Amino acid sequence: MAVAGASGYAGGEVLRLLLGHPEYRAGRLEIGALTAGTNAGTALGALQPQLLPLADRILAPTTADELAGHDIIFLGLPHGQSAALAAELPATTVIIDCGADFRLTDPAAWDRYYGGPHAGSWPYGLPELPGARDTLRGATRIAVPGCYPTVSSLALAPAVAAGIVEPAVNVVAVSGTSGAGRKLDVSLLGSEVMGSARAYGVAGAHRHTPEIAQNLSTVAGAPVRVSFTPVLAPMPRGILATCTAPVRVDAAEARAVYEKAYADEPFVHLLPEGVLPQTGSVLGANAVTLQVAVDIDAGLLVVIGAIDNLTKGTAGGAVQSMNLALGFDETAGLSTVGVAP
Amino acid sequence: MAVAGASGYAGGEVLRLLLGHPEYRAGRLEIGALTAGTNAGTALGALQPQLLPLADRILAPTTADELAGHDIIFLGLPHGQSAALAAELPATTVIIDCGADFRLTDPAAWDRYYGGPHAGSWPYGLPELPGARDTLRGATRIAVPGCYPTVSSLALAPAVAAGIVEPAVNVVAVSGTSGAGRKLDVSLLGSEVMGSARAYGVAGAHRHTPEIAQNLSTVAGAPVRVSFTPVLAPMPRGILATCTAPVRVDAAEARAVYEKAYADEPFVHLLPEGVLPQTGSVLGANAVTLQVAVDIDAGLLVVIGAIDNLTKGTAGGAVQSMNLALGFDETAGLSTVGVAP
Amino acid sequence: MAVAGASGYAGGEVLRLLLGHPEYRAGRLEIGALTAGTNAGTALGALQPQLLPLADRILAPTTADELAGHDIIFLGLPHGQSAALAAELPATTVIIDCGADFRLTDPAAWDRYYGGPHAGSWPYGLPELPGARDTLRGATRIAVPGCYPTVSSLALAPAVAAGIVEPAVNVVAVSGTSGAGRKLDVSLLGSEVMGSARAYGVAGAHRHTPEIAQNLSTVAGAPVRVSFTPVLAPMPRGILATCTAPVRVDAAEARAVYEKAYADEPFVHLLPEGVLPQTGSVLGANAVTLQVAVDIDAGLLVVIGAIDNLTKGTAGGAVQSMNLALGFDETAGLSTVGVAP
Amino acid sequence: MAVAGASGYAGGEVLRLLLGHPEYRAGRLEIGALTAGTNAGTALGALQPQLLPLADRILAPTTADELAGHDIIFLGLPHGQSAALAAELPATTVIIDCGADFRLTDPAAWDRYYGGPHAGSWPYGLPELPGARDTLRGATRIAVPGCYPTVSSLALAPAVAAGIVEPAVNVVAVSGTSGAGRKLDVSLLGSEVMGSARAYGVAGAHRHTPEIAQNLSTVAGAPVRVSFTPVLAPMPRGILATCTAPVRVDAAEARAVYEKAYADEPFVHLLPEGVLPQTGSVLGANAVTLQVAVDIDAGLLVVIGAIDNLTKGTAGGAVQSMNLALGFDETAGLSTVGVAP
Repeated sequence: MAVAGASGYAGGEVLRLLLGHPEYRAGRLEIGALTAGTNAGTALGALQPQLLPLADRILAPTTADELAGHDIIFLGLPHGQSAALAAELPATTVIIDCGADFRLTDPAAWDRYYGGPHAGSWPYGLPELPGARDTLRGATRIAVPGCYPTVSSLALAPAVAAGIVEPAVNVVAVSGTSGAGRKLDVSLLGSEVMGSARAYGVAGAHRHTPEIAQNLSTVAGAPVRVSFTPVLAPMPRGILATCTAPVRVDAAEARAVYEKAYADEPFVHLLPEGVLPQTGSVLGANAVTLQVAVDIDAGLLVVIGAIDNLTKGTAGGAVQSMNLALGFDETAGLSTVGVAP
Repeated sequence: MAVAGASGYAGGEVLRLLLGHPEYRAGRLEIGALTAGTNAGTALGALQPQLLPLADRILAPTTADELAGHDIIFLGLPHGQSAALAAELPATTVIIDCGADFRLTDPAAWDRYYGGPHAGSWPYGLPELPGARDTLRGATRIAVPGCYPTVSSLALAPAVAAGIVEPAVNVVAVSGTSGAGRKLDVSLLGSEVMGSARAYGVAGAHRHTPEIAQNLSTVAGAPVRVSFTPVLAPMPRGILATCTAPVRVDAAEARAVYEKAYADEPFVHLLPEGVLPQTGSVLGANAVTLQVAVDIDAGLLVVIGAIDNLTKGTAGGAVQSMNLALGFDETAGLSTVGVAP
Repeated sequence: MAVAGASGYAGGEVLRLLLGHPEYRAGRLEIGALTAGTNAGTALGALQPQLLPLADRILAPTTADELAGHDIIFLGLPHGQSAALAAELPATTVIIDCGADFRLTDPAAWDRYYGGPHAGSWPYGLPELPGARDTLRGATRIAVPGCYPTVSSLALAPAVAAGIVEPAVNVVAVSGTSGAGRKLDVSLLGSEVMGSARAYGVAGAHRHTPEIAQNLSTVAGAPVRVSFTPVLAPMPRGILATCTAPVRVDAAEARAVYEKAYADEPFVHLLPEGVLPQTGSVLGANAVTLQVAVDIDAGLLVVIGAIDNLTKGTAGGAVQSMNLALGFDETAGLSTVGVAP
Repeated sequence: MAVAGASGYAGGEVLRLLLGHPEYRAGRLEIGALTAGTNAGTALGALQPQLLPLADRILAPTTADELAGHDIIFLGLPHGQSAALAAELPATTVIIDCGADFRLTDPAAWDRYYGGPHAGSWPYGLPELPGARDTLRGATRIAVPGCYPTVSSLALAPAVAAGIVEPAVNVVAVSGTSGAGRKLDVSLLGSEVMGSARAYGVAGAHRHTPEIAQNLSTVAGAPVRVSFTPVLAPMPRGILATCTAPVRVDAAEARAVYEKAYADEPFVHLLPEGVLPQTGSVLGANAVTLQVAVDIDAGLLVVIGAIDNLTKGTAGGAVQSMNLALGFDETAGLSTVGVAP
């Protein structure tokens, strides 16, 4: 397998998980080419010091030539770069794209939020959505969901699918800074983010808005209106999403819907009544923790969800999809145990 | 002046502001009795090491006797303790209560959220609400608002008052940990909160919910339905509130309403279009920064507000109200300049 | 196996590692009794929400009866409690004590730093110290080192053993807050620790001082004088130790000593020249990263070491010792890959 | 007055303090030109959102023309830029340089640590050093000390001056990230620094090493050998310095030396015995808190010092020196009260 964009946060997390994957440990999967853009030529250890076993690996440039010959390729690239690269690789290669290029099915939504030509859409790597597993088994092209859409969609899909809420949802999601990627931006400096919370991309401006709407509308079989506000919090990882929608049932019925929806899901955990999710508990874990409540006075369903944006929100979801694509045990190499405190 | 509860976060912040107050620096106000509960007998320096000029002051027990003889008394006590204490003090003493005892006007709301007998209500120390200044000038009893209600009410009052939104608002507010007070609780340990975000008091369970509803309903002249979700973030101070409501106007009209409402307010700043509030910018400042947007697709007004929960959200608001009560310049001793980064 | 003190940070980390241990995953090791003090009767999920697979396990009281019948018992108890408990358990049970009771060999040092009767000493669970592995193989009683002594001893042992420094070392170690345990102490509240660094236990007052001295003196075969200053930093985990000693060789010779000492150690990594350790890179990993330099002007060897205090500094070291005691692969269930960023 | 480099952390903090300075508030000092390099043309509010009263000010380019005509100019520029700029300004203008250009008196030290031509040295803005106030009163050129040298020198100067330690000191100082400036560097991203501590510039490589040595050697009247290790901690501000040196006296004598040295200093506070400094307590304050102890076993004096690197460590020291230069009260506009928690 190869990883393009191995110097970024998504690429690093993919490699962390692969190093612990049973197929890798058994010698049946090899970690081949690791590529990067401007960091090509650098030892991985200088960029991803947490990956001690791979510290001496030198990053190659991200080109189709370097990636050719690998059966599985993970892409952790800025949006807009995956499509061209994928086009140069064989259709039989399993390509798992952690970027946005192939997530949206609607060209108009792509144009509005990303601009440029729409590359199309690939099977969407959120196995817990209804019907998704079937499209992922044996797939050779997979679009890994965005981090916010992962937790928001899983938090709201059961309610939307069961029709227990009006099709108008509100998501305010607090995220750690790694969600913004390893980007040189003054507003992402430690001095700026520590001790401070700030909203960004408000009023529907964030690119994950149409992706959440797409997922929920698909599940509902009808358009779902989405208000989405991301908030940056002073922590490296984690998303805590507060999701609300006008509710048509009481708390017990709502809970029953979620219990049923996720009874057999290995990575989605509805917490006991009254226990609220926290991102610290799922740090490094491929887990989603949820709590469901009904605010009677406000007439709202309130669903709180927590994930690690880099694990279940990106690289863990990618590995989970890889497992499905290649016929491995879906949970192979993925743990629901967080690193806490 | 005296401070009861000088060992807590609210009391400490009141003292920080008083030490810089021009009346204190000019020698016209003295810092008299400083009292505490279990910490009585301890030097303030051991508990509030940031207050170097008062480090040698020994905390007295919180009793009416110790507080008697002061013209101004700030109370930073657990709820339920202010009423009994205030009853023992002269009606002419200016008492400014940072606790919850006298905030709610509705005994039923008090009973539901706090339980026990309702002590009544005092002039509400949020001068920026319509008509509030008149009740605060010359007042001898003042109820300082809760931190969440301060920012939420100021973020939504103009819209509600102008009728540009439906009377059903949704507030998700990210707070630093000092809002929970200096309380020995495992969930507030540094090891638990750092690197983690978590919701609490969801679905209307938080005690600040009825206070927000009271403020907005008063402003609207009709009941306003409030959904409120507080989220704890890994920072000591600050609240970032994301407030939404179904909107009846476009972005320009909405902005105009806010510009007009806060044009002359010294402590409420509507940021330039597109600039979003962040809590780090108002650290230690008696300032509220706001941004207003309209999400056309979702049909919502989105107002983002930031405050320092201990300054404008508690002690700064208390000093601002004291200034009004005593006829000082309302801005005396209060700065809008934050300590950043 | 059983874990006494499963509600604490050490116990929680032991369980995190055991859940990923190949012997557990293969069904050859079972997780039996989980015990606690005041938290007995509570579900583990309420205290260690990161351990999702064990969330429903109810904590039993920490008694010899509850622990009896287990082949392996990890103790994560306040110091002073292990000795009595161990005395009630069979000599053939493998007991691995994460506390301090059996670390010090010198009763006078115990008396000075801990007071009360000296319980004796057990094989010391730092396999990388010269000769330690032999005493750990097949051992039924193991004293897990303190977190500061783990990194400080490994950072300085090669130099002291090789005689390339004077026997007078200075350690200033920055630690995350989990090193203080899950203790209800105002100074450990998130509001107090975030945004602040502070020293504590200065001038030889910290209990880990004699343990570092014991290790280095044993390695040197002569007394080594230790100055040790711990500093609390606003992070949940990690220790970054700056270790200095008057040096007798140049940088190249110093480096050669360390390269030789740790060439075959799976968990101790001497970083490439010029690359400095950081605690974030070893988060959750059973790894020590080191860098060695010589300050010619000051005449000092400077060794920087980083560990995760809960992993290699406590629970990882405990599992590593368990592996040796039971004849498993020493690295089983232990990864050198950190969770970063 | 003007501020060159108003978009940086030092410049921002100078402006924060000036906005609260009594001479400014009385209208006797005006805030004139605010300049920047690449940020020229931008509104200050976009870069320093905490400076609400100056939000609309547009940054001018940093040129002698823009700065001409101001009586007082603060420079917060990358090193190497101050000398050329100062040469173009009148000798009567009070120039206060927060950069390094004029701190070192020894051209050889300059060349070794900074390279390029040595611009010379200016009166050194650390008033608490013996004799320093005399050189600062009426000065028109002032070199503000580095942040590490500020706290390290004040922590060790009394001992070195009194000869109670050997002239060989060891400083390990934990710093917040703002000390590195507002620099676009991957290693300073929030995702990289949060949850992690790391050393840098070890073994005498940090540029503040010769400055500490210069200060202490001057005070001692003989060369003092300095070992200095800076450690980056996950906090925006603050330095906690652990300073040790072989000691010749007992704890009582050592304490007496410090009590005497700082008895009349308004900004240096020797804490009560046993109370240890913490950076959080001096956040935003122009204060140094110290504790002194003797480690009998190790034979070392241990001095712990805390400052806010941006306030007493940079901008506060600059304003303090300005006060002296212009004949204002030395403490004008400077508070010893920190913003905590």
